[in-house]
Amino acid sequence: MEGMILELGYALDTFYFLMCTALVMWMAAGFAMLEAGLVRSKNTVEILNKNVLLYGIACTAYLFVGYNIMYPGSPISSVIPGIDFLLGAENTVEDVTLGGEDAPYYSNMADFIFQAVFAAATMSIVSGAVAERMRLWPFLVFAIFMVSVIYPVSGYWKWGGGFLDELGFQDFAGSIVVHAAGASAALAAVILVGARKGKYGPKGEVRAIPGANLPMATLGMFILWMGWFGFNGGSELKIANVEEANAVAMIFVNTNAAAAAGAVVAALFARFLFGKTDITMTINGALAGLVSITLSR
Amino acid sequence: MEGMILELGYALDTFYFLMCTALVMWMAAGFAMLEAGLVRSKNTVEILNKNVLLYGIACTAYLFVGYNIMYPGSPISSVIPGIDFLLGAENTVEDVTLGGEDAPYYSNMADFIFQAVFAAATMSIVSGAVAERMRLWPFLVFAIFMVSVIYPVSGYWKWGGGFLDELGFQDFAGSIVVHAAGASAALAAVILVGARKGKYGPKGEVRAIPGANLPMATLGMFILWMGWFGFNGGSELKIANVEEANAVAMIFVNTNAAAAAGAVVAALFARFLFGKTDITMTINGALAGLVSITLSR
Amino acid sequence: MEGMILELGYALDTFYFLMCTALVMWMAAGFAMLEAGLVRSKNTVEILNKNVLLYGIACTAYLFVGYNIMYPGSPISSVIPGIDFLLGAENTVEDVTLGGEDAPYYSNMADFIFQAVFAAATMSIVSGAVAERMRLWPFLVFAIFMVSVIYPVSGYWKWGGGFLDELGFQDFAGSIVVHAAGASAALAAVILVGARKGKYGPKGEVRAIPGANLPMATLGMFILWMGWFGFNGGSELKIANVEEANAVAMIFVNTNAAAAAGAVVAALFARFLFGKTDITMTINGALAGLVSITLSR
Repeated sequence: MEGMILELGYALDTFYFLMCTALVMWMAAGFAMLEAGLVRSKNTVEILNKNVLLYGIACTAYLFVGYNIMYPGSPISSVIPGIDFLLGAENTVEDVTLGGEDAPYYSNMADFIFQAVFAAATMSIVSGAVAERMRLWPFLVFAIFMVSVIYPVSGYWKWGGGFLDELGFQDFAGSIVVHAAGASAALAAVILVGARKGKYGPKGEVRAIPGANLPMATLGMFILWMGWFGFNGGSELKIANVEEANAVAMIFVNTNAAAAAGAVVAALFARFLFGKTDITMTINGALAGLVSITLSR
Repeated sequence: MEGMILELGYALDTFYFLMCTALVMWMAAGFAMLEAGLVRSKNTVEILNKNVLLYGIACTAYLFVGYNIMYPGSPISSVIPGIDFLLGAENTVEDVTLGGEDAPYYSNMADFIFQAVFAAATMSIVSGAVAERMRLWPFLVFAIFMVSVIYPVSGYWKWGGGFLDELGFQDFAGSIVVHAAGASAALAAVILVGARKGKYGPKGEVRAIPGANLPMATLGMFILWMGWFGFNGGSELKIANVEEANAVAMIFVNTNAAAAAGAVVAALFARFLFGKTDITMTINGALAGLVSITLSR
Repeated sequence: MEGMILELGYALDTFYFLMCTALVMWMAAGFAMLEAGLVRSKNTVEILNKNVLLYGIACTAYLFVGYNIMYPGSPISSVIPGIDFLLGAENTVEDVTLGGEDAPYYSNMADFIFQAVFAAATMSIVSGAVAERMRLWPFLVFAIFMVSVIYPVSGYWKWGGGFLDELGFQDFAGSIVVHAAGASAALAAVILVGARKGKYGPKGEVRAIPGANLPMATLGMFILWMGWFGFNGGSELKIANVEEANAVAMIFVNTNAAAAAGAVVAALFARFLFGKTDITMTINGALAGLVSITLSR
């Protein structure tokens, strides 16, 4: 009978992972809508295509190469990328019902797909920064490299058990591993490709480039907010006992509070500093709150 | 071993609450899209900003004040608003595995966040009614008052164990507590601020003000429909045994049937009364079905 | 105590079904956005209305007639359509805790609602094919017939235990039962109603009719992608043990990989065959991947 209980816990933890995966996958739509709404209308369609394709490339590259580099100790990664994966080395009923500290408590495949949507999210972050600055195919070639090598290597340092992890580095759900990695790649790209044409006038004066479709950008923010429950909530990695369930619930509370406060504070700042608030500031405030809270549960 | 079973049930009920929370939070996007799609295009951006900010304010105000007033008996509410909350008085493994009638079966934090997104939904309902009639900041100041005091007090009457509850008042998932409370506040506001400019001609004739973005409004309706599964489904408060699981399943069936029938009947009425149907009527029919079914599981 | 475990498993499987139902319902929004984005702007509003109403009609018709024909052996179907259903013949605690091979492991109502959203999805597929070719009410009358009779009969052949099932016909989640059934009805309709006006020039030359709102179409694709996790993932019908949890996780991996690869391959083909890629091709590639993987877990 204890076996049945352990199986149920395994099933619940796996299901929790998969629901969180669906929510994080959904963030790809959020990034697409956010970016497509904030660029000029002439660039909307290319940005959409870029966002779908980067997600497709990221998931494929992470399947065959990235996951193996980032999690060398996983039962479904091997020296030859993708081999163990395609063999499908899953946990057996015996593995699970043995119980004890080392017994697996969720599906390896569920772990993979959760990590894969994180890798795709990292690439989406780069996309936003180089929007309107970079052509489609060079960006997509970079996406292959980013998700196959750069992100897995830096991700390994912390989540794969590498040196940052050994040093006690703190990063709950990927404020650094995902968001700062994406942002660093974005910064490098931005330095290389330079500012958007028309951003600066002949005398160096800054020109605002307002978003062309603010409803779409707002929708994108809401999608990201919803998806973030999966991003942070899933990062607890387990829900099937009292302490873990409490922890996941607290994460939902904190994630929502951070986004809520971020939106309100940004609007107030804009109101008092610039004399008026606008939806772009509110959106950025909410997203800043979400990125910040990702550092800690 | 019974302890493990009780822990698993607690984890499943908590997870169920959290997934329903994500769905209800998602309704904020639905209200935003619905409203932004149904107003005139000149007001779109302000409506979007209002919807994001009211959600942010509602969640924050409910965290520090509203929840404490509405649920004075909760382990995470206290005389000094937010204090117990910030201390994080959660259920322990011992509380749960003791079993029996009084043992908690879900996380207090999960309960809070589920209630918080309900409070935000109440405020979103007000927002729709005063769209195009009220400026941003006065509305937001009202939101603080509404979610800190008005909604918690009337909500307490039923869900916090107040006099309506003692009298046997029937309201399953908030047809009255949420929807009629929001609607009453909206009615009061509407009486105060008057009709939209341009709604009536010089001789008092009614002028239709068609929505400027019907795809967005339709998307908003679909989002609300999806989110309502969490709104009604989560209001059962428990899923982790046969009877409760059956009840939640029946709620999903009823919620969907009510929306489906509402849309179809409204379209037929419009067809036979006015000679043609339009998407706005269909949307309103679906939403009317959803609000109605919320009264009873 | 074994009873409590069986009840928990029943609750988890029911909850899993209901979450997948919400995701498949969400696909209705995906179809609506996809179609509304890909037609000419003059037809946008009618397409939206059609999509909401077909969903409403499909759910209602399936409730009263379709489900009874498709699943004659279900405890909630009867000779007089809807009668057992309205009586609510649900599993009792005794049924479940008896255990053994024949004990029910999820709510009959959860099964119904999951099947109902599949029926609606079938009708949505027809809708896309006849977009811009068919008037609203004739289409809706056809929807009644399709979801009451045609789909339930062909669905019965496989999923209701009919002759295709006895012959060992292979269709995991509805590549044939749903997608090919919808596509066949669509093909018949398309042959009857002919091409869209303006599709061919006077000398028979093909004229491209580009979509009027590509962000909306892209959003529709992302919604469908997300919803497909519920469509395929839920088709395993059970998650509450190690083997089933592993299977559902593998389905999530495969569903995502198929869509990802479909998008990328379609974009590469377009790039090398036509010299450029566009978002419409990418969207179609992702959807083709999703439909294909539905054949097998």
